[in-house]
Amino acid sequence: MQFEILKKDRNSGARLGKCHTAHGVFHTPAFIPVGTQATVKAMTPEELREVGAEIILSNTYHLYLRPGHERIRRMGGLHRFMHWNDPLLTDSGGFQVYSLNSLVKVSKEGVQFQSHLDGSRHFISPEKAVEIQEALGADIILCLDECTAYPASHEEAERSLELTLHWSRRCRDAHRFPDQALFGIVQGGMYSDLRQKSAETLVEIGFDGYAIGGLSVGERKEMMFQVVAETAPLLPQDRPRYLMGVGTPGDIGEAVRQGLDMFDCVLPTRNARNGTLFTRSGKMVIKNAKYAEDSLPIEPGCRCYTCRHYSRAYLRHLYLAEEILAVRLNTIHNLHFYLRYMSDLRQAIAEDRLEGFMQDFNSQWESGKEPASEGPESLPPRSGGRQRISFEGTHGLTKSFRMNLKNQQGGEFDV
Amino acid sequence: MQFEILKKDRNSGARLGKCHTAHGVFHTPAFIPVGTQATVKAMTPEELREVGAEIILSNTYHLYLRPGHERIRRMGGLHRFMHWNDPLLTDSGGFQVYSLNSLVKVSKEGVQFQSHLDGSRHFISPEKAVEIQEALGADIILCLDECTAYPASHEEAERSLELTLHWSRRCRDAHRFPDQALFGIVQGGMYSDLRQKSAETLVEIGFDGYAIGGLSVGERKEMMFQVVAETAPLLPQDRPRYLMGVGTPGDIGEAVRQGLDMFDCVLPTRNARNGTLFTRSGKMVIKNAKYAEDSLPIEPGCRCYTCRHYSRAYLRHLYLAEEILAVRLNTIHNLHFYLRYMSDLRQAIAEDRLEGFMQDFNSQWESGKEPASEGPESLPPRSGGRQRISFEGTHGLTKSFRMNLKNQQGGEFDV
Repeated sequence: MQFEILKKDRNSGARLGKCHTAHGVFHTPAFIPVGTQATVKAMTPEELREVGAEIILSNTYHLYLRPGHERIRRMGGLHRFMHWNDPLLTDSGGFQVYSLNSLVKVSKEGVQFQSHLDGSRHFISPEKAVEIQEALGADIILCLDECTAYPASHEEAERSLELTLHWSRRCRDAHRFPDQALFGIVQGGMYSDLRQKSAETLVEIGFDGYAIGGLSVGERKEMMFQVVAETAPLLPQDRPRYLMGVGTPGDIGEAVRQGLDMFDCVLPTRNARNGTLFTRSGKMVIKNAKYAEDSLPIEPGCRCYTCRHYSRAYLRHLYLAEEILAVRLNTIHNLHFYLRYMSDLRQAIAEDRLEGFMQDFNSQWESGKEPASEGPESLPPRSGGRQRISFEGTHGLTKSFRMNLKNQQGGEFDV
Repeated sequence: MQFEILKKDRNSGARLGKCHTAHGVFHTPAFIPVGTQATVKAMTPEELREVGAEIILSNTYHLYLRPGHERIRRMGGLHRFMHWNDPLLTDSGGFQVYSLNSLVKVSKEGVQFQSHLDGSRHFISPEKAVEIQEALGADIILCLDECTAYPASHEEAERSLELTLHWSRRCRDAHRFPDQALFGIVQGGMYSDLRQKSAETLVEIGFDGYAIGGLSVGERKEMMFQVVAETAPLLPQDRPRYLMGVGTPGDIGEAVRQGLDMFDCVLPTRNARNGTLFTRSGKMVIKNAKYAEDSLPIEPGCRCYTCRHYSRAYLRHLYLAEEILAVRLNTIHNLHFYLRYMSDLRQAIAEDRLEGFMQDFNSQWESGKEPASEGPESLPPRSGGRQRISFEGTHGLTKSFRMNLKNQQGGEFDV
């Protein structure tokens, strides 16, 4: 993988970049749609490209359990399996192991857990995490890490960090394929000294890119941005910086100004399934009665397929009727919104007007804000230790063949 | 509407036709995908056209209840509402009223029932059925009829027929718009004399087309075809004949030979959602373990989007993972299969080789038949009277926001 910085913003840490992977190029700052089970829910690869996606994410944990990484390898790898021939990123599964399982045992050797699908026992070492991702064949892969609980004492966060650093070294050693870029993940909780230690040690070990993990886990936004602001300058300029699990458009814009290049988040896709649509003037809850006969598109001027052809009234009807087409049309719009926003961000950086763009965007966003009635914007706080979070509603874990589209506080599984 | 017979088969009752409606042309014999709630589940209009659909069906009963026919009228009509600018057919709602409601009261004046959505009471007269369909604006609309229970005594079937004929006259009188074609529906249970009386009376009243209703309600196939064989010759040659709710490809082929022109059925779409895929060699149950690493498409040689890009292994994975994309890809294939089959039928009629085509098709279909493990091919038998059928599983009636994709014996609602 080659990361090319095309331009550095003069007034902030933002960078305009281009990342060359074994399966093509993506431009940064980039938003990465999340596709947990070898599919970005409801979208075909062609539609993803049509809305502007250049790179997508798939979850190692889920694919390891079903259909299995060896099976995917035998089928020719994940790109081929899911008909996505463009840049692909897999995470290591660390986060999902914790968020989806109640019986997780962590040791220096790795993570032991039970499958949320059938209760079978599994063990993943750092080497295994790399091996699985090698079999899947993504262009960018991640180290196995421990996502530090929040809140955590300094002692807990330090112990957790040591584990992650130990695992990161082993992932680095196990990493074989040059056409797969391996990213290290900065942890350290909300402690500046630990974050610093983490960043410096990862740089010392040396990775193809650096992710910042363990944020957007229930902490206040200000704290998250403080950690980002302190961490980014410690990472090499010439490598991509990936802020995991973030965020709202405003969050992304702020993090871009602090020098982050890559972002993944379930917000656009999950909100779509819950009938919440993104517009420049804030979020729209489509089931609201006021849209019952509204012939306007979601956002007048939006060029996505949904806005070019369908009224709010029809989208509301589909949503209330629990139709699959509701999920599709909403997802198309929200992903188009996010990816268009990233494109606008890149354009603003290129033209030295990032600050003005962000101000305009943020003020318009705040101006029209509907009261948020659909779910939290970040994951619920994690309890101390590695106990399973109790999420409301089913999130794909039911055995019967049902899709719970109202899962607003779903875990990583329902993306 | 103008119905043009392009060719009559010399060796059977089959006809090749072309139907000109206010929103364009469709060719007969035609298969009409079913789209209950102003959407053919999971498909956009563009995709429907891409798989070969020229006309689709929407259910009056459901749209009357939600979002309401007046609302749709104010939004510019159903074509515009759902972005389908091609031929559109609505049924009168008669069947759904019975199949979805337990408290149905029938009188000469019409049908009183309770909404399956919220229990509210409603009354639909023949005039109201026409009014609703006028508001929706479909190109072909149907008379209000009573779908005679099966089994029914001769006396019951006759009483039921008298009601339908009475209502048919009133629908005809209420019918106003010349660009909306009104079809009468032949009833009469399984009794030749009643079917004859029904057909002759409807022809006397005079309609733009003639549907045959009250079949595929639990009777043996041989009985259904006997009724069809006796009824078709009694209908005018120069009007389309529409066999409602039928059927498998083999059924359709047989009915085409007996002179039927139009067919609607939930089989391809519902089976798709249940992971059952149509091939020339019979039905394939995609969740079967033998497909776990099968890199072939569903049907080698099939030119649908799904078969051009995805393996059975991936489709199986998606289905087991309960992903929306599974529904989409399966539906695309099954509809393509059905519509391609209709195209082949038309071609065979045009080239005077219908018999040979049917023989080849039927023998290949029978040759590879997997044991049918997913649901019956026709609706379960109706009990006498108008009691609600108890269907297994939820079929969209649950209040919580879930889509039961495993509804194999679903009523008309889950199409």
